[in-house]
Amino acid sequence: MKKSQSSQASAASQTLRHFGEDRLIAELMRGAPLGKNVIAGAGDDCAVIGRRADREWLLLKTDCVIEGIHFEKSADPRRIGWKALARAMSDIAAMGGLPRHALVTIAASPDDSVARLKAIYSGLKKCAARFSTGIVGGETARSPDALFVAITLTGFVEKNRCVLRSGGRAGDAVFVTGRLGGSIRGRHLDFAPRVFEARWLTENFRVRAMMDLSDGLGSDLPRLARASRCGFEIFEKKLPLNTRCTSENALADGEDYELLFTIAPRDADSLEKTWRKKFPRLPLTRIGALTRSHQPSTINHQLFPSGHDHFA
Amino acid sequence: MKKSQSSQASAASQTLRHFGEDRLIAELMRGAPLGKNVIAGAGDDCAVIGRRADREWLLLKTDCVIEGIHFEKSADPRRIGWKALARAMSDIAAMGGLPRHALVTIAASPDDSVARLKAIYSGLKKCAARFSTGIVGGETARSPDALFVAITLTGFVEKNRCVLRSGGRAGDAVFVTGRLGGSIRGRHLDFAPRVFEARWLTENFRVRAMMDLSDGLGSDLPRLARASRCGFEIFEKKLPLNTRCTSENALADGEDYELLFTIAPRDADSLEKTWRKKFPRLPLTRIGALTRSHQPSTINHQLFPSGHDHFA
Repeated sequence: MKKSQSSQASAASQTLRHFGEDRLIAELMRGAPLGKNVIAGAGDDCAVIGRRADREWLLLKTDCVIEGIHFEKSADPRRIGWKALARAMSDIAAMGGLPRHALVTIAASPDDSVARLKAIYSGLKKCAARFSTGIVGGETARSPDALFVAITLTGFVEKNRCVLRSGGRAGDAVFVTGRLGGSIRGRHLDFAPRVFEARWLTENFRVRAMMDLSDGLGSDLPRLARASRCGFEIFEKKLPLNTRCTSENALADGEDYELLFTIAPRDADSLEKTWRKKFPRLPLTRIGALTRSHQPSTINHQLFPSGHDHFA
Repeated sequence: MKKSQSSQASAASQTLRHFGEDRLIAELMRGAPLGKNVIAGAGDDCAVIGRRADREWLLLKTDCVIEGIHFEKSADPRRIGWKALARAMSDIAAMGGLPRHALVTIAASPDDSVARLKAIYSGLKKCAARFSTGIVGGETARSPDALFVAITLTGFVEKNRCVLRSGGRAGDAVFVTGRLGGSIRGRHLDFAPRVFEARWLTENFRVRAMMDLSDGLGSDLPRLARASRCGFEIFEKKLPLNTRCTSENALADGEDYELLFTIAPRDADSLEKTWRKKFPRLPLTRIGALTRSHQPSTINHQLFPSGHDHFA
């Protein structure tokens, strides 16, 4: 038996717990039809649809939150609604785009109350209104147990402001917005997606690669670097930490929903100066650099701890 | 206390089981921001996005299937994947449109096998390829228990071929494709969404109102009639029944995924004749007519039994 066949056979008999999420998506998407006019498909924060000649491109995102996984049963339902939509907006922001239209699917138990669903929608509407987004479709389904909310979100981005994960170059300065770690203490339910900040960035600077931090810097930075065919180095002491957080929290907790991006090193000083004037209350931190891919990726020469894997 | 306040208060304390799905969606969507360039929002088979001056409009659909609700745990996973995408395609077809790009979110237990997810994707890819649709995004999430598959599907439709539910007029002939009832015996997992049939219809006839039959004629025809501000009458003996099905099955079973549409009565004969030549193996049946809204809606003067409510 050839090696490739043997690894395929063993892959098929494995459970998700031991497989690894990125590898799973790659396996699942293999051989999938891509369709026409696809600028970026699975593997970036959003799908990007358009023709090279278009001035604007369509962004597509789907995402879901599930009771017991992304929120506790006892969570304030308005915050559940906010979180469900804000997560998808964070991905639209990470492409440099603006959100436009949302569709919502809620699956709930027949014994759930109308009041709870109305409160979830109240959070959804608040988030939609805050970011000038329409809610243009709603579906309900019966769930056997856990409540879940699935979101479809469209957006648009001007072709010359669309930022993929893959545009980073060796030597680029790596930045993050905000502070990292400890989101589980509550911020994961009412974070502000960095839509306005990302729009300002792509209007004023040539952002080369960008993504949002959902699984933790320890998972997400390697993804960005890999997409850009680079390595990276991180200055551990520079990591902007939330109160009572260690750098381990910053790397592995996940759900920060901050922007991670790279720009040319010559633009870094100018960015830091103008950012402080524009967003005085939101830190922007240069945490490291992209390196050539054959150099080992490091945080101060320690092995890089990985972030959150959904099935582990 | 005013009547509207009192009914609102009692609504909030109710469970979904006793509330009614259409009323629930209406309650949830109340006050939702609609956004720009929305031709049709929640309440039709798809959202329709565009400007009046555009030649083509964007169609948006979200939908999901859940283990234990829409399929049994033991169901062939390839058929689960096919069904998940085909349901959304059926809604794109019901607008007169063609599907374009799909995104998939699968939530599964960590103890689920990679093989099962790959087989689900195999069904998704088969359906996508059959209808020239790209799969441009895949997300995975952990589910506490039941597996679910959420689909986002985009499509497009030429402005002059877009069919809403609301365009029917009193006197219109009402048609359905295929045969109704008994889908639970297996057809609900591998039905063919009527994409090509709907495209042929909108190319060759002025279809006034259309939707797909997902909850059963008994629920769906009243929805179409209400959206068109009409009543209806149905000739019960004309209902095209699947083998071993009664008219009760045809009205209430649901999951037929056939097209329900209306055209001007003067076009009906010509439609029936040309349809038989074009689609000799798929029945097309004139089952009744739209009536003026103040006339009682009837099936041969019986009260109209309702179809499937997801929470009842």
